[in-house]
Amino acid sequence: MKLQLDIIENPSRESWKDLLKRPSMNSEYLDQAIHDIFFSVKRNGDQALLDFTKSFDGTEISSLRVDKETINNSENYISQHLQDAIRIAAYNIRKFHASQANPIIKQETSPGVICWQKAVPIQRVGLYIPGGSAPLFSTVLMLAIPAQIAGCKEIIICTPPGKDGEVNPAILFAAKTAGVNEVYTIGGGQAIAAMAFGTETIKPVNKIFGPGNQFVTAAKQAVQKIGIAIDMPAGPSELMVMADETANAEFIASDMLSQAEHGPDSQVILLSKDKALAKEVIKAIKKQIQGLPRENIIMQSLESCKVIIMNSDEQLLQLANEYAPEHLIIAMENKDEIAESITNAGSVFLGNYTPESAGDYATGTNHTLPTNGAAKAYSGVNLDSFMKKITFQEASNEGIRKIGHAIELMAEAEQLEAHKKAVSLRLKNSQNV
Amino acid sequence: MKLQLDIIENPSRESWKDLLKRPSMNSEYLDQAIHDIFFSVKRNGDQALLDFTKSFDGTEISSLRVDKETINNSENYISQHLQDAIRIAAYNIRKFHASQANPIIKQETSPGVICWQKAVPIQRVGLYIPGGSAPLFSTVLMLAIPAQIAGCKEIIICTPPGKDGEVNPAILFAAKTAGVNEVYTIGGGQAIAAMAFGTETIKPVNKIFGPGNQFVTAAKQAVQKIGIAIDMPAGPSELMVMADETANAEFIASDMLSQAEHGPDSQVILLSKDKALAKEVIKAIKKQIQGLPRENIIMQSLESCKVIIMNSDEQLLQLANEYAPEHLIIAMENKDEIAESITNAGSVFLGNYTPESAGDYATGTNHTLPTNGAAKAYSGVNLDSFMKKITFQEASNEGIRKIGHAIELMAEAEQLEAHKKAVSLRLKNSQNV
Repeated sequence: MKLQLDIIENPSRESWKDLLKRPSMNSEYLDQAIHDIFFSVKRNGDQALLDFTKSFDGTEISSLRVDKETINNSENYISQHLQDAIRIAAYNIRKFHASQANPIIKQETSPGVICWQKAVPIQRVGLYIPGGSAPLFSTVLMLAIPAQIAGCKEIIICTPPGKDGEVNPAILFAAKTAGVNEVYTIGGGQAIAAMAFGTETIKPVNKIFGPGNQFVTAAKQAVQKIGIAIDMPAGPSELMVMADETANAEFIASDMLSQAEHGPDSQVILLSKDKALAKEVIKAIKKQIQGLPRENIIMQSLESCKVIIMNSDEQLLQLANEYAPEHLIIAMENKDEIAESITNAGSVFLGNYTPESAGDYATGTNHTLPTNGAAKAYSGVNLDSFMKKITFQEASNEGIRKIGHAIELMAEAEQLEAHKKAVSLRLKNSQNV
Repeated sequence: MKLQLDIIENPSRESWKDLLKRPSMNSEYLDQAIHDIFFSVKRNGDQALLDFTKSFDGTEISSLRVDKETINNSENYISQHLQDAIRIAAYNIRKFHASQANPIIKQETSPGVICWQKAVPIQRVGLYIPGGSAPLFSTVLMLAIPAQIAGCKEIIICTPPGKDGEVNPAILFAAKTAGVNEVYTIGGGQAIAAMAFGTETIKPVNKIFGPGNQFVTAAKQAVQKIGIAIDMPAGPSELMVMADETANAEFIASDMLSQAEHGPDSQVILLSKDKALAKEVIKAIKKQIQGLPRENIIMQSLESCKVIIMNSDEQLLQLANEYAPEHLIIAMENKDEIAESITNAGSVFLGNYTPESAGDYATGTNHTLPTNGAAKAYSGVNLDSFMKKITFQEASNEGIRKIGHAIELMAEAEQLEAHKKAVSLRLKNSQNV
């Protein structure tokens, strides 16, 4: 396979839409499969989970819940170095997410009328962690740590078994590090169904988080219909790099490759005003790709790679905000100024020494981020994702006298007479107090 | 029709699920209708909107967009008193939502590694406002004012025409008050389709807000599949009242009636330890209902009304949190203490002088709230609903040296070699700087 990376210069505004198109996803055909899985899990509970695991994961599991001892002993299977690394990452993730808590501010909107909002943890949350050959234990940290800081009382993990029917010890160790001890050996759409509807063993959750394959994604999409919240819509991972002549071509090439290795549908885009840099980056990609274990995946992914040259920072910014990348590296001299004007992105990496993989693991920011342009309307996972806000209000006697008449008039105009009466009664009474 | 309201005493824990069941909603049959509407709007654009308006709203409209002059002149059709009332409500809503903004906090998670998150307005938001006989102009204020405070650059309103083909002037006046001048005369599922896919006249939006009938609700549910965000799932409105002997039975009856007048599927529940109070409330409901213009709707709604007596505050709280009401009135002597223990609710009204209708219009809190138990995982609309958070991170040379090795180890364990290399390259280079 030969790697072909062309440079696109000053594409016209009209061509942007096509240029920035994501690899298409078609989930229509999954709907029936998900419907069948949901039906079986609702009907047969645990037994359906065991059956699906046998047919989809090709392994038999004896018990759905991982016992405490297995979780506790997981560190015996993890090197001391990796344990330390996980603890460093956990520390940074904890520190950053803890800083996202906001105080309650009571506001007197009108004399005698006090309003406030209070963030309250979601009681029970379900975290889906992909398993298989490369267990994403980092995702355990990214989801379980903020859930814990938020104060969620019950945090559960669902993750598919490996071929041996067991959960990967790195996932269990990350769970233990984050303080989660309710772990279930179940993956795919059936795990989502179990968390949404509940079975004999798995109690239903209020919100489901985490990445997954197309079945998981379609199942998460579907459970929203019955009122289960999800973190965000999912799509293939993506990286945009904005670079100028102060950037290091080798570094950028390595970042683009690290994004590309996620999967054949990952997308990588380089934006620059500097054609010479772009050429250097392409050269460096061709050199660095050699010998990477996932070369095959990377080659497929790079087929949708774009290298785009524009004339001005203004144009680069417009293009970046139009694309709304999940990950955005800004390796430019005026990075701070450029960053100020970014309006659509999941997570932004500034300067030459902040590779995307730093945020994937250990800077402390969350790596569960909006893809596929969802950054135009969605945040990545953060402390708020595990809480909901309740508003409170209290009007005193004086308070209702101040705003009561306005309420009466508006209720009347909306033809809601009983709404009006609820105020009129109080107004009448408040004058006697 | 005779009103039958029984008192349920100390229901067993096992019976709660049935007792707290919401009126069921079945939207399955709507899926085909919504599919057809989406297909037509995608294919025929504006013409499809005009056709649907003719067949669904029974009126012909000459132009989709309401012209500036009509919006400007709307105040000629609104009494001075109502104008003042709307301005008072707008002031309080503005004051409360403005107080929800949070500062950016930069956090050094590890020496040389700085992380922060920044709330950025969603560029273009679409507000759906139900029209017809009772135009919900208050919802215009509730959605457009926080959108404006958030800094959304483009705020559009879609609302169905009345029988005369025109948008109700109260809606236009509220839009003007809130500073919105992009208003379209289009309702139903076709309005949601237009905001999601765009037509010749209506540019697509990033997020759709607002209540609506079953078609609107199903259409909002459906557009999430293509990546358009929505405010929250919608269901019938509901009120729970927690009251003790310090409460005023007449007030509570009026609140329950004001909730019931929303629609036949609205639900109202009274919780108390005090049976005498419960009896008084039922008596007051029977008295107050007489002569209310929506008596018919109220009678239907009250068929699902529950009056429940429990022995302890603890049990009342458990029941309330299990139900997760959209609106919760706490008229109890120890209201502050009770409020502290509320974990699931949309908006809470404290004391005898804070009727639910005060929050519907003018205390300043938002009236777009999670229904149907969604308060377990969803917030009501607030300032954050119109923003998304972008995370930023910057590692210095020192920073990457501190966390780089941990990243390498974790990337290696997740079998993401290119992720590791992106860090290794920097570590190598950083030692030479």
